[in-house]
Amino acid sequence: MIKVSVMYPNTPGARFDHDYYRDQHLPLIKKRMGAALKYYTVEKGLTGRAADDPPAFVAMCHLLCDSVEAYQSSFGPHAEEISLDVRNFTDLASVKQISEVVVENSAAVGASHA
Amino acid sequence: MIKVSVMYPNTPGARFDHDYYRDQHLPLIKKRMGAALKYYTVEKGLTGRAADDPPAFVAMCHLLCDSVEAYQSSFGPHAEEISLDVRNFTDLASVKQISEVVVENSAAVGASHA
Repeated sequence: MIKVSVMYPNTPGARFDHDYYRDQHLPLIKKRMGAALKYYTVEKGLTGRAADDPPAFVAMCHLLCDSVEAYQSSFGPHAEEISLDVRNFTDLASVKQISEVVVENSAAVGASHA
Repeated sequence: MIKVSVMYPNTPGARFDHDYYRDQHLPLIKKRMGAALKYYTVEKGLTGRAADDPPAFVAMCHLLCDSVEAYQSSFGPHAEEISLDVRNFTDLASVKQISEVVVENSAAVGASHA
């Protein structure tokens, strides 16, 4: 299983609409990717290492798919539409990476070890 | 629910032992935090935005807890021991942040919306 992480660097003065991100943008991705998207997670940055440090990222989402190929074949055809929606919630450029899921959920029965 | 993300920037020439991280370090954290740690996830960076871009982070883990207070009261007393174990798998300094979990798992029944 792989995880696509999209992370928005916390930049003073930048715009980020967390409600739109949760209620419109991620559901759009889910609708377009269909069954290839196993599930996603969404986070809103609170603090950095110390309680009074700003978080490195103001928001993140993680998309879980069976393989890089499953992600590319389902997201790729809709990449332009999804990318155009980004301006509706932020003016930030994201950091994006694909990771191998080493442990999906340590509490799950048969927690995955790749 | 909150998520503590620990991310190791991908730095050429740096050392990172993914096996130790999965088999020793995260289990140590789990043992010390006890029930306050709902579960954790572990990832190994594969690529960046494009298939031939390096990932921003060579490895990440995410610790899920009910609250910032639950995290601090369970991790805090063991922070020094856990921190001393880091040298056993890497010479990298991590980026750490605490986030509010907006959507924990979009596929779960009653997916959490904070």
